[in-house]
Amino acid sequence: MSEVTVLKIGGSVLTDRSKERTLKLREINRIAKEIASVGVRDLIIVHGAGSFGHPQAKRFDLDVPGKCSYETIIIHNVVKELNRIFIEKLAENGMLVVPVHPLNCTISREGRLENMMTDQIRLMLKNDIVPVFHGDVIMDRIWGRAILSGDQIVAHIAKCLNAGRVGIGTNVDGIMDGKKVMDVITPEEFCGVKKLLKGSKDVDVTGGMASKANELFKLAEEGISSHVFNASKKGLVINFLSGERNFGTIIRGD
Amino acid sequence: MSEVTVLKIGGSVLTDRSKERTLKLREINRIAKEIASVGVRDLIIVHGAGSFGHPQAKRFDLDVPGKCSYETIIIHNVVKELNRIFIEKLAENGMLVVPVHPLNCTISREGRLENMMTDQIRLMLKNDIVPVFHGDVIMDRIWGRAILSGDQIVAHIAKCLNAGRVGIGTNVDGIMDGKKVMDVITPEEFCGVKKLLKGSKDVDVTGGMASKANELFKLAEEGISSHVFNASKKGLVINFLSGERNFGTIIRGD
Repeated sequence: MSEVTVLKIGGSVLTDRSKERTLKLREINRIAKEIASVGVRDLIIVHGAGSFGHPQAKRFDLDVPGKCSYETIIIHNVVKELNRIFIEKLAENGMLVVPVHPLNCTISREGRLENMMTDQIRLMLKNDIVPVFHGDVIMDRIWGRAILSGDQIVAHIAKCLNAGRVGIGTNVDGIMDGKKVMDVITPEEFCGVKKLLKGSKDVDVTGGMASKANELFKLAEEGISSHVFNASKKGLVINFLSGERNFGTIIRGD
Repeated sequence: MSEVTVLKIGGSVLTDRSKERTLKLREINRIAKEIASVGVRDLIIVHGAGSFGHPQAKRFDLDVPGKCSYETIIIHNVVKELNRIFIEKLAENGMLVVPVHPLNCTISREGRLENMMTDQIRLMLKNDIVPVFHGDVIMDRIWGRAILSGDQIVAHIAKCLNAGRVGIGTNVDGIMDGKKVMDVITPEEFCGVKKLLKGSKDVDVTGGMASKANELFKLAEEGISSHVFNASKKGLVINFLSGERNFGTIIRGD
């Protein structure tokens, strides 16, 4: 197995977060084409739920601990729908992709991913298949059920498979210090940036940029760097997959 | 957790095996109603693929070892469609059901199920959720991909969760000795019955009744009994779930 690349595409890139279950079909198409055009080997894709999960989860109070119910399953089905559509577009562009639904292979403890089966993922990569994960509701040892963010998945799988490259495609230019994109964040700066992001207003059921950065800082502490960039800007997914690094924010894992 | 019940519904019960992708919708409805009406706790459902998998797998030569390809994924999608429809009917009848796709949580070695994550399944049961598995194509350590029969899933999960009851709903009255249904098969008789079934003509990509009996004999050797009955006959699913045993074939695990 060559170096594994993990690419996350945020739910806000693929869907219109302001309206429930609204696709950005043109964007989904573009992103699928960009990913397929580079043809990276040993690629794992993770996508967020966007309007196929967040508003519903909020309505059903799934962002607080609580018993597993019919609503839990509705959320699972809704985000699966987005997954199906995204996968269809990737396949149309010639990619050998399979869905991986975290509810089926992951459990958490008080909202933190505790265990994920990865043998099947390693075999998919060995067979030139691209697994496509999504944010999901999963079974939780303590709470009954929990929301699992795409970012938690990225951090976990990148660590398990010792990923060489981790890209987080969002709808912002990177991690911001006021109006300026931070080019690089080194481990020494993590504490300061955490404080900075705490005031951020962009908060969804998985915690927005503060929570995203938190996952990536933890990953960096394991020695794995990541790269936050704007996937809504044409060409940047290609640039990331091609190994360019002169855009967005690099979170340094050294 | 109380005693776990595993119920398999054969693909021939839910679909018309003679025509590709043909549902027996009335039967699916009836079976869903029967299962829901008994309201068994700690239930795991497994269903076969029937015409949503077998003919396609045969056409694509998926019943022999070979590389993972686009066809593999088509089979997965087709059987998932049947799973979605069956689950919908179970949910319509008030059941809290979630799909479990073996491709996401299971791997095999030369066609034999080698590893399945079960922690998420235990948590589903703890949360009163009924997991619904299906026959699938999965990643195989040696072959690339393999077909995983519902019967292998039944035997594996029944063993892992030390199931108290295992029911195999097929479209025949039980395991036949000529034209007579065998009421009970004891471990001493396994060898003889294996020889008897070898000549059976009802063979699909997962091996028909001979292969089904083989899985159940292995399960019996682990001390777990199972019950093969005709789920196409009205009321027998209810009878099985209610604990009746005076029909079909009991494979004794003592």
